[in-house]
Amino acid sequence: MSTAGQVIRCKAAVAWEAGKPLSVEEIEVAPPQKNEVRVKIHFTSLCHTDVYFWEAKGQNPLFPRILGHEAGGVVESVGEGVMDVQPGDHVLPIFTGECKECPHCLSEASNMCDILRINTERGGMLHDGHTRFSKDGKPIYHFLGTSTFSEYTVVHVGQVAKINPEAPLDKVCVLSCGMSTGFGATVNVAKPKKGGSVAVFGLGAVGLAAAEGARVCEASRIIGIDLNPNRFEEAKKFGCTEFVNPKDHNKPVQEVIAEMTGGGVDCSIECTGSTQAMVSAFECVHDGWGVAVLVGVPSRDDSFKTHPIHFLNERTLRGTFFGNYKPRSDIPGVVEKYMKKELELDKFITHSVPFLDINKAFEYMLRGEGLRCMIRMDA
Amino acid sequence: MSTAGQVIRCKAAVAWEAGKPLSVEEIEVAPPQKNEVRVKIHFTSLCHTDVYFWEAKGQNPLFPRILGHEAGGVVESVGEGVMDVQPGDHVLPIFTGECKECPHCLSEASNMCDILRINTERGGMLHDGHTRFSKDGKPIYHFLGTSTFSEYTVVHVGQVAKINPEAPLDKVCVLSCGMSTGFGATVNVAKPKKGGSVAVFGLGAVGLAAAEGARVCEASRIIGIDLNPNRFEEAKKFGCTEFVNPKDHNKPVQEVIAEMTGGGVDCSIECTGSTQAMVSAFECVHDGWGVAVLVGVPSRDDSFKTHPIHFLNERTLRGTFFGNYKPRSDIPGVVEKYMKKELELDKFITHSVPFLDINKAFEYMLRGEGLRCMIRMDA
Ligand SMILES: NC(=O)c1ccc[n+]([C@@H]2O[C@H](COP(=O)([O-])OP(=O)(O)OC[C@H]3O[C@@H](n4cnc5c(N)ncnc54)[C@H](O)[C@@H]3O)[C@@H](O)[C@H]2O)c1
Ligand SMILES: NC(=O)c1ccc[n+]([C@@H]2O[C@H](COP(=O)([O-])OP(=O)(O)OC[C@H]3O[C@@H](n4cnc5c(N)ncnc54)[C@H](O)[C@@H]3O)[C@@H](O)[C@H]2O)c1
Ligand SMILES: [Zn+2]
Ligand SMILES: [Zn+2]
Ligand SMILES: [Zn+2]
Ligand SMILES: [Zn+2]
Repeated sequence: MSTAGQVIRCKAAVAWEAGKPLSVEEIEVAPPQKNEVRVKIHFTSLCHTDVYFWEAKGQNPLFPRILGHEAGGVVESVGEGVMDVQPGDHVLPIFTGECKECPHCLSEASNMCDILRINTERGGMLHDGHTRFSKDGKPIYHFLGTSTFSEYTVVHVGQVAKINPEAPLDKVCVLSCGMSTGFGATVNVAKPKKGGSVAVFGLGAVGLAAAEGARVCEASRIIGIDLNPNRFEEAKKFGCTEFVNPKDHNKPVQEVIAEMTGGGVDCSIECTGSTQAMVSAFECVHDGWGVAVLVGVPSRDDSFKTHPIHFLNERTLRGTFFGNYKPRSDIPGVVEKYMKKELELDKFITHSVPFLDINKAFEYMLRGEGLRCMIRMDA
Repeated sequence: MSTAGQVIRCKAAVAWEAGKPLSVEEIEVAPPQKNEVRVKIHFTSLCHTDVYFWEAKGQNPLFPRILGHEAGGVVESVGEGVMDVQPGDHVLPIFTGECKECPHCLSEASNMCDILRINTERGGMLHDGHTRFSKDGKPIYHFLGTSTFSEYTVVHVGQVAKINPEAPLDKVCVLSCGMSTGFGATVNVAKPKKGGSVAVFGLGAVGLAAAEGARVCEASRIIGIDLNPNRFEEAKKFGCTEFVNPKDHNKPVQEVIAEMTGGGVDCSIECTGSTQAMVSAFECVHDGWGVAVLVGVPSRDDSFKTHPIHFLNERTLRGTFFGNYKPRSDIPGVVEKYMKKELELDKFITHSVPFLDINKAFEYMLRGEGLRCMIRMDA
C-alpha cells in the first residue's frame, strides 16, 4: 500500500537539547511539498558537522532538531513539480544543493548554488519555512535540509543525487559529505600531476579522502601532517608515504617540508580548520607552480596572514567547498568511480552500529576513534 | 670593420651615486664571454624599478652602476657557446631569464628560472662575477643583467628574446618589462572570459597594461581603481569603463565593487604594491569563481591578511612575475601580437627624449607625468 501523500509515523533520533544524547523515538513525517522528495533512509553515517551542531558551541542553538547529513536511501514519494527523481530511485541526500538555474549552477567553476547552498541556520524547508517533522504536533527542526537521522526524511529535490541503484548504500553513503569533500579538493582543485608531490594537513576523514585523491592521481609522494601521531598508522592505508608532526620540529613545518622536497611540494591540501595549518599549507608549496587548497572550516574571528611575496613567487591559493562537486550533476559520477574500483571507500568505514545505538557513533567520534561509523536504519 | 672581440668605447649614462643625475660619458664595454651577447641598444625606456634602485632607498646601494632594463637593440657580437642568436638579430634584453633546462623552465606553469631569475643585488655577470663595463679601468656595475642605459651592453643569452626584425624597436621596447607584466597578468593568469568583469587596482603603466589585456580578452566591464583621480582620464584609452577612487567612499572599496557588480567581479588584478589594495583586490572578486592576481611588489615587512572564509567560498588568489611569460619562449609571440594589431603599445609611450636628456625621463616619472618615456640612443 502506498504511503504517498500520507503522514508517515517512523523512528527518528531527536536531539532535544545541546549535548544531550539523542533520543530515538516515534515522530511524524509530513508528505513532501512542492519540489520536495521524501526519502526512506537505509544507512547514515556521522560527520563532525553533526557533532558541532549537536554541541552547539559558538552556534545558534536550534532544538529540537533531527541531525544527520551523510546518508543513502530510496525515494518513497515526491512532491509537486519533481521531475528528476521518482519513487524507488536510489539517492544520496546532500547538505548543499544545485538548482541548475542560478549563476553558480550555470558556471563551470562554482558549486555554491545561490538558492540551495549550505545553510546551517535554517530549521524549516525552503518552500514554506515550515518543518515536515513533528512529535505530537510540536515541530522538530531540520538540519542542513537533510536530517538523515530518521527512517524517513524530506529533502529539496535540488539536494538529492540520483545514483546507480546497484551501488551499495552502506558504502557510497559517505560520499554525501566528507569523502567527496576531501577527494574532490585533490582531484578537482589541487589536481596533482602523476608523479607529483602532495602534502595533506590533517589526517581526519576529510584529509584521508584528500590523500586517497592523491593516490588516485598517482602522486609519487604523499606527505601527511598531523599534530596527533596516532593518525599516522591509519594514514598508510590511504597512500601516505611520509609523515610530519609539526611538534617534532623547532622550525615551522613549511620549512621542514621545503627541505624534504627541494623547495616545496607541488600541491597541498589543508583539512584541519586551523589557520596555522592553512598558512603552513600555503607556504610549503613550491614557487613557480605550487597550488594550496583550503578545506578546513575556520572560526569566526580567524585570520589568514602571510607575506605577499609568497604569492608573487607564483603560488596559488584556493578554497573549496564540497570538493567543488555539483551535488546532482557530479556525485552520481563519483559513485560510478567507486563501482569501477577507481576510488576506495570501504576503508573509511571503521565502525557500524544499529540505529538504536546511534549515540555510540557520537562517542567514537568524540574519542577520535576511527573515521566513519555506519548507522544501520533497519537494524 | 667588425668590432667583435674588441673592447668598444661608447656612451653610457652612469649612476655614480644614489639619487644624483646620471652622467652620460664614454666608457669601455668588454667583449661578451661564454653564453653572453653584446647588444647595440637602439631604444630604451624608463621603468619604476630603475628609479627605485637609483634612489636606493631600502636597497643595498651598488654604485657606480648602469641602470636600464626596458630596451630594444641589435646583436653586435656573441660569446662562446651562443647558438640561439647571431650578430644582426633584433632582440629585447629582459631582466629575468630562461635557461631552458631548470625545473622552472621545464615546467609549463613557471617562468622563475632557477639560474637566471631576477637578481637585483648582482652587479657582475653570472659567468665570472666580473663586470663588462669600466671607465679608465674602474669597474662599473651591471643592473638586472641588462644595463640598457648604454650604447652597448652585455647580456646573458638566457636574457635576450629574439624578435621579428620588422618590429619597430621604439615601440616593442616596452615589452621588456612593464607592459608584458601587466598584459600577461591578465591574459595568462587572470584569464577573464569574453563578457566578464575585471577590476584593475592601480592605473600606472603596469595596471593600464593589465586593462589593455582585459580589453583584448573582450571583458565587458573594466573597473579602474586608483587613489589618484588624475589617472582616470588617461585610463579610458586603455579600455577602462568605470572608475572608483577608494577615497570617495566611507566603506572598503571591495564592498563598493561588490555592490556595483552584484556580488563581485570575475577577476581582479592588483598593480599597486600596496597591501591594502592587495586585500581589496582579493576580497572584491565573486565567490564561486573569482580570481585575483597580485602583481605589485610589496615592501619587506608587509603582510597580507584576510579571513580564510573568503578562500573557502571558492575564490582563488595568485601572484605573477613578468606576467608569467617565459622571456625567450613567449615574448617573440607577444611582439607578433603587436605586429598583428592584437595589442596596442603606442599609447603607453607618452614622452620621448634623446639619450643626452635621459635625466628628463627621471623627472617625468618622479612627477608622475605620463607612462613611458622613450630614450633614443642615436639622437
Ligand atoms: N569545505 C568543506 O566543504 C568541508 C566539508 C566537510 C568538512 N570540512 C572541514 O574539514 C576539516 C577536517 O574535517 P575532519 O572531519 O577530517 O576533521 P577531524 O577533526 O577528524 O580531523 C582534523 C585533523 O587535523 C589535525 N590538526 C588540527 N590542527 C592541526 C595543525 N595545526 N596541523 C596539523 N594537523 C592539525 C587534527 O589532529 C585532526 O587529526 C574540518 O575543519 C571540517 O569542518 C570542510
Ligand atoms: N610582478 C612583476 O613582475 C612586476 C614587474 C614590474 C612592476 N611591478 C610592480 O607593479 C606595480 C605597479 O607598477 P607601475 O609602474 O604601474 O607603478 P605606478 O607607481 O606607476 O602605479 C601605481 C598606481 O597605483 C596607485 N595606488 C597606490 N596605492 C593604491 C591603493 N591602495 N589603491 C588604489 N590605487 C593605489 C597609485 O596612485 C598609482 O597610480 C609596482 O608595485 C611595481 O613594483 C611588478
Ligand atoms: Zn543554483
Ligand atoms: Zn559532513
Ligand atoms: Zn631555467
Ligand atoms: Zn621594469
